[in-house]
Amino acid sequence: MKRIGILTSGGDAPGMNAAIRAITRKAIHEGLEVYGINYGYAGLVAGDIFRMDESTVGDKIQHGGTFLYSARYPEFAQVEGQLKGIEQLNKFGIEALVVIGGDGSYHGALRLTEHGYNTIGLPGTIDNDIPYTDFTIGFDTAVNTVLESVDRIRDTATSHERTFVIEVMGRGAGDIALWSGVAGGAEAVIVPEKDFSMRKIADKIRAGRNRGKKHSLIILAEGVMHADEFAKELGEYGDFHTRVTVLGHVQRGGSPTARDRVIASQMGAYAVDLLQQGKGGLAVGIENNKIVSHDILDLFDAKHHAELSLFDLNNSISY
Amino acid sequence: MKRIGILTSGGDAPGMNAAIRAITRKAIHEGLEVYGINYGYAGLVAGDIFRMDESTVGDKIQHGGTFLYSARYPEFAQVEGQLKGIEQLNKFGIEALVVIGGDGSYHGALRLTEHGYNTIGLPGTIDNDIPYTDFTIGFDTAVNTVLESVDRIRDTATSHERTFVIEVMGRGAGDIALWSGVAGGAEAVIVPEKDFSMRKIADKIRAGRNRGKKHSLIILAEGVMHADEFAKELGEYGDFHTRVTVLGHVQRGGSPTARDRVIASQMGAYAVDLLQQGKGGLAVGIENNKIVSHDILDLFDAKHHAELSLFDLNNSISY
Amino acid sequence: MKRIGILTSGGDAPGMNAAIRAITRKAIHEGLEVYGINYGYAGLVAGDIFRMDESTVGDKIQHGGTFLYSARYPEFAQVEGQLKGIEQLNKFGIEALVVIGGDGSYHGALRLTEHGYNTIGLPGTIDNDIPYTDFTIGFDTAVNTVLESVDRIRDTATSHERTFVIEVMGRGAGDIALWSGVAGGAEAVIVPEKDFSMRKIADKIRAGRNRGKKHSLIILAEGVMHADEFAKELGEYGDFHTRVTVLGHVQRGGSPTARDRVIASQMGAYAVDLLQQGKGGLAVGIENNKIVSHDILDLFDAKHHAELSLFDLNNSISY
Amino acid sequence: MKRIGILTSGGDAPGMNAAIRAITRKAIHEGLEVYGINYGYAGLVAGDIFRMDESTVGDKIQHGGTFLYSARYPEFAQVEGQLKGIEQLNKFGIEALVVIGGDGSYHGALRLTEHGYNTIGLPGTIDNDIPYTDFTIGFDTAVNTVLESVDRIRDTATSHERTFVIEVMGRGAGDIALWSGVAGGAEAVIVPEKDFSMRKIADKIRAGRNRGKKHSLIILAEGVMHADEFAKELGEYGDFHTRVTVLGHVQRGGSPTARDRVIASQMGAYAVDLLQQGKGGLAVGIENNKIVSHDILDLFDAKHHAELSLFDLNNSISY
Repeated sequence: MKRIGILTSGGDAPGMNAAIRAITRKAIHEGLEVYGINYGYAGLVAGDIFRMDESTVGDKIQHGGTFLYSARYPEFAQVEGQLKGIEQLNKFGIEALVVIGGDGSYHGALRLTEHGYNTIGLPGTIDNDIPYTDFTIGFDTAVNTVLESVDRIRDTATSHERTFVIEVMGRGAGDIALWSGVAGGAEAVIVPEKDFSMRKIADKIRAGRNRGKKHSLIILAEGVMHADEFAKELGEYGDFHTRVTVLGHVQRGGSPTARDRVIASQMGAYAVDLLQQGKGGLAVGIENNKIVSHDILDLFDAKHHAELSLFDLNNSISY
Repeated sequence: MKRIGILTSGGDAPGMNAAIRAITRKAIHEGLEVYGINYGYAGLVAGDIFRMDESTVGDKIQHGGTFLYSARYPEFAQVEGQLKGIEQLNKFGIEALVVIGGDGSYHGALRLTEHGYNTIGLPGTIDNDIPYTDFTIGFDTAVNTVLESVDRIRDTATSHERTFVIEVMGRGAGDIALWSGVAGGAEAVIVPEKDFSMRKIADKIRAGRNRGKKHSLIILAEGVMHADEFAKELGEYGDFHTRVTVLGHVQRGGSPTARDRVIASQMGAYAVDLLQQGKGGLAVGIENNKIVSHDILDLFDAKHHAELSLFDLNNSISY
Repeated sequence: MKRIGILTSGGDAPGMNAAIRAITRKAIHEGLEVYGINYGYAGLVAGDIFRMDESTVGDKIQHGGTFLYSARYPEFAQVEGQLKGIEQLNKFGIEALVVIGGDGSYHGALRLTEHGYNTIGLPGTIDNDIPYTDFTIGFDTAVNTVLESVDRIRDTATSHERTFVIEVMGRGAGDIALWSGVAGGAEAVIVPEKDFSMRKIADKIRAGRNRGKKHSLIILAEGVMHADEFAKELGEYGDFHTRVTVLGHVQRGGSPTARDRVIASQMGAYAVDLLQQGKGGLAVGIENNKIVSHDILDLFDAKHHAELSLFDLNNSISY
Repeated sequence: MKRIGILTSGGDAPGMNAAIRAITRKAIHEGLEVYGINYGYAGLVAGDIFRMDESTVGDKIQHGGTFLYSARYPEFAQVEGQLKGIEQLNKFGIEALVVIGGDGSYHGALRLTEHGYNTIGLPGTIDNDIPYTDFTIGFDTAVNTVLESVDRIRDTATSHERTFVIEVMGRGAGDIALWSGVAGGAEAVIVPEKDFSMRKIADKIRAGRNRGKKHSLIILAEGVMHADEFAKELGEYGDFHTRVTVLGHVQRGGSPTARDRVIASQMGAYAVDLLQQGKGGLAVGIENNKIVSHDILDLFDAKHHAELSLFDLNNSISY
């Protein structure tokens, strides 16, 4: 193998640039040539491909987003698009591929491998909703971004004795809510994986107030319901001076944390090792603090499990 | 004069604690005794008043919010409440007052002065919407908080070629939008003080795209309209992959910037000087980089003017 | 058991307050009473002990340092001091203790347990130099603090084509250097656990320059040598426009990261569980992403191992 | 006039990129062509000059440093170098120049104007040591960077009851020390513009201790003496558990604050206006919150004055 390609796909996540850098530098270190593919699978099919050297990835590690750009491209589910992509790879003499993205991106990676193109997937998403990895690239940064906002809102909540409902990202997963809830000292964390009783939450806020607590913070995962809806339902149990904040896309950006840069670097270098060994169709992850890989096929049968012990922990220490 | 009191009123703002600290320390330095009043005018009327010494305000300068808490208390517009407040002040032997807050707070300050209680107002609000001061305490912090979010959103906007509409605070004033717009390199800044043409904004975004620009950022002051509404109207001129973010209450919190701490300290110390000179009914501000004061009465006849030269500047450098 | 105590000892670390909060809240949740002990073992012996309730630990989770203060107190190595400490605990009816600190603190915890006082140790130190835990409370924050400085220095290094030697903390351990080196994209990471050749480092910098690289960053663990000394020795191999920065005590402070707050909360709650089960003489840690405990005695025979795979990783991707 | 050039010179400062962007965009907006000159006067003489368009300066506003690089080049004091520089400018058809940098850079700007090349200077330095401007580009960012470190050190100082001496930049000027000292609540600020008594400082720390104060922070301007030396001299008046931190080059980097980006944008656009009016030999500044310009010649006769009222203010509120 002499040439590999890299693309980022789906929603962008902080640390993607660190992963691209690690793959590129490690591959060149191993004597390979490296090509970047712009705009994910769309750029692959369109042939938006360019040679990268060690300098191309210089001064990128600290930046959020992905300098290879990303794009949604559902058309890649069709065989036709896949074959067109392979044609482009052949034209550039690229023999293997690393794809960084969410679970949608893994389908493409698997298809390419099935067509004979070894492709390795790296979990790049803030949502942490990918099976067989404890953490995805971008999750730690997103949680810390949320936390900064929670700390800020806490200031103003304290000054005015208010209840704040803060809606955070995560799609169907409660991970961002759980981590930022425990770290932010939220009175309640509402996640898709757990039922909740609005009445009990109202009781808890009321109990805190009676005890002299100046504010209540509720972290709501977007997968449960809209924050406005939540606030309205809560309002049926009393007036808690509730204010709503939807953090939105700020959660996707920002300079990646140390941890996201480190695991992105580890996973990127590991992907090159796997390709060097002639492997494909694998998803890289971190489990029990070790870099691992699994068949992508296995991921499709599996389900991501949020760390629900954090839910119970929060109930026992936040009140 | 031997004793002064301090209260914070209206929406909280970063730097209020720095102001409380400066007033307290400066007054003690001048041989005065200092009392804190919790929950603004509500606490004044209720007699929620306590003695502070130099340690009370220790390790507070770096924190957002106000450790004296704040509250809205429209009842203070009634003479009855004002007299009750003065009764409480008399009970504690407090002879003069400093009030930190927005323009609503100044009415109370003026009334108290008219009743014979010298009261000085300090401009504490993130909105910068107070006449006779170029900057309010909290404005610089709020602008930098917005800017951090704009920088984060820029990452993800670039990765995906999107248009972002970011709604910022400011009530009827465009100051936060103007400053964060220029500093954030926003393609458009929409403020209450200036008319705008949705068609021209759409043309500008389109022109940028044609030139290869990866993202467009629009900063929208809350005083104009809701961001969702704006995005909908913009959508009538084309599909710009528009996403909406309403920054909300994060803008009120956070550790104050150096500038907010410095002007809060200058204004706080200056207020004590004024009280020492037997003055009241004055609003402290910063004009042309100098700490000044004006009759509160003059403020009610005046209007705050946002720095609209920033609007023209932005048009000439952001495209 | 009805009453437990908490103290922090040794160098402070971000996240200690989150641990104190979790222990306190969890214990109260379990029906226990909780006492705080100021100034570590010194305060224990002096009887500087006070009752805490759920509010005592409110609004503390986001702050660096330790609100129970810390102190070095070598006298606690003497049996006399230990017995005096137990006398104080008896006086307050405190039946078990949680100690948060570095390895020095664990000796005291073990001695107390041997005297019949169940004591649990939590790893609170930025240095990450404690055996049987992959991460200590405070380490993640310190690494991110270093990283922020590295990113800042990168700006100015690029502008001027310079080589920067950045000395970081870690006592005898290279963990902070390794993590911040990989995350910061440092050309070289110098740690006590690995020999290095100054000539090879000089060659690497020179090779980067010849390739057009604008800056070189070297992260130096304090356990190796002083940065000034390092720069002087490097200077013998050529003029690399070297500048030295010793980050110093900024690394100990700051608001804890999400991860440090979460593991501090997990470990704190776990310590209460252990005490409830009548256990003592244990050190809590996190291994393979799970909260665990080990006999403190075992820790004294063991050695902390830095994640040296990061050293090799860095060599293969930073050049 | 059809073509202008831009260079950055001397030490880099956050906001230089914002200035380059504003000059470029404003000039293109006015129908001019713009050239960037790499590496300051050295690159000018060497002809390291390239055409820039509106995209060249895209996504630069948020980055520290200068993407045009900087260099010290004392040779430009010689007429020979100046004439060589003009020759290069002529070759590219560049008719006027904007130079962003410290006072050293202004000499070159004046010489070029004297040779018939209109050149405008912009004050780009963190040190704030330029006459006829209240603030330089980069100063606000540097002060906030220092402040973040002071806040961090405060955490650990409180935990351990220590005295910290923090050495900050500023060359011969005390501005960074004064602003960060007031904003950081430092017990003492030591600047070149004011004499100080080590004995009085020791007395103040002692008095604070006796009152129960947990920490003392001293901000020392580098223009006074080295922090180690200061700590040693302080030690002669008692043991204050003194620790020293030299913040160093982190102060030069980082994403510019809103204020630095705004004044850089204002000054940059103003410089283009001046060149359009056929003016040269002027230094742009901000005085009394207004963008102004002065003859560079006047600057050489003038002295920068630090805002020493902050020194007295700090004495009256920090104890």
